[in-house]
Amino acid sequence: MKLFGFWRSMATFRVRIAMNIKNVRPDEEVSIDLMKGAQFAASYKAVNPQMVLPALADGDGPVLFQSVAILEYLEEKYPNPPILPKDLRGRARVRGLAQIIASDAHPLYVPRVRNYLAKELKLDEAGVNKWCHHWQAAALQAVETHLTGDKETGRFCHGDSPTMADICLVSHVVASRLFKLDLTPFPAAVRIVDECLKIDAFARAHPLKQPDAPKEITH
Amino acid sequence: MKLFGFWRSMATFRVRIAMNIKNVRPDEEVSIDLMKGAQFAASYKAVNPQMVLPALADGDGPVLFQSVAILEYLEEKYPNPPILPKDLRGRARVRGLAQIIASDAHPLYVPRVRNYLAKELKLDEAGVNKWCHHWQAAALQAVETHLTGDKETGRFCHGDSPTMADICLVSHVVASRLFKLDLTPFPAAVRIVDECLKIDAFARAHPLKQPDAPKEITH
Repeated sequence: MKLFGFWRSMATFRVRIAMNIKNVRPDEEVSIDLMKGAQFAASYKAVNPQMVLPALADGDGPVLFQSVAILEYLEEKYPNPPILPKDLRGRARVRGLAQIIASDAHPLYVPRVRNYLAKELKLDEAGVNKWCHHWQAAALQAVETHLTGDKETGRFCHGDSPTMADICLVSHVVASRLFKLDLTPFPAAVRIVDECLKIDAFARAHPLKQPDAPKEITH
Repeated sequence: MKLFGFWRSMATFRVRIAMNIKNVRPDEEVSIDLMKGAQFAASYKAVNPQMVLPALADGDGPVLFQSVAILEYLEEKYPNPPILPKDLRGRARVRGLAQIIASDAHPLYVPRVRNYLAKELKLDEAGVNKWCHHWQAAALQAVETHLTGDKETGRFCHGDSPTMADICLVSHVVASRLFKLDLTPFPAAVRIVDECLKIDAFARAHPLKQPDAPKEITH
């Protein structure tokens, strides 16, 4: 397996966590530098036409794309340990929580959107940050209400073992911390994320632990 | 089953198509008027803390939320006819195509984002439209490249029966048409969407066919 990623790509972070949980190691991890626009190179466009991260090559077929689709693929190919519950309603709840993050929050603060805000709409840094904080907080508010209002919430988002919901929530809260969002209104989400980050599979997938992370941040 | 939706909610449109394909009818469809802000009412917030559509009540448990999670739930509860292929790579491709739309395109042009652009960033109508067109076209370009470059593409996005990828693509192209996006650069996507709309399950789920659609548009 070859994983195309980048240290600060939150969608790659999700795939790394799932691979760690399932004890699957990529033979190679190719760093695509989002800050230098390497995702727009013809060589990478040939790998992933959407020119976003991550992409996962597994054998000879076309590469896999979109982090949530890759999580589902890993779950089906390597069912143990699972990252989805067994029961239908539980699976729907976990996928719903994951999608609040992966669909309705993260795509609003990725580099291509921040670039549009800055370059096309001429927003200054404070304006771009306000935008990012707005959508980061909106998703966290929805997740927090689910976590505090549903008896299925346990040590993790759903029961006592980590699922796709935790994987997506961790990527979102780690990102929100990098953006210096005030997380005090979301104690349940923060508790669960900190619980996840105690687990080796989550901790060593952290963006700042990646070999392509700049040393001035990681040190 | 009780479906909370709205005629022009593209995420509700997806769930309606899947229910039609699987021949599952909601006992009731509750119209939540997004244009009047009915999604922010306390009564709906108690149903779906994220205050977005759709939500699906199935029996006594907590309601289901997030359209893609609901599609997966319907697929697991009513496996026939399927909206995912049987093979792992095919499932990953279909889910990946669906996520290009459901994660990386649609959340960028929903009402709450257009409102932020207009009210917070003071964009005029042309500016908001340009934003919507930009992200609509970016996703369609990625999907078009997948569709034209992969031998798995058939009568539909993946082979010759409709899948989640088609469901999401139809919702996106119908929306893009409402926004008057120029679709000529995306002939493969348009061909497939028009093929889907010949099928009754897709056609009668169309926003303009819903009882809560305004008569001046539907006539």
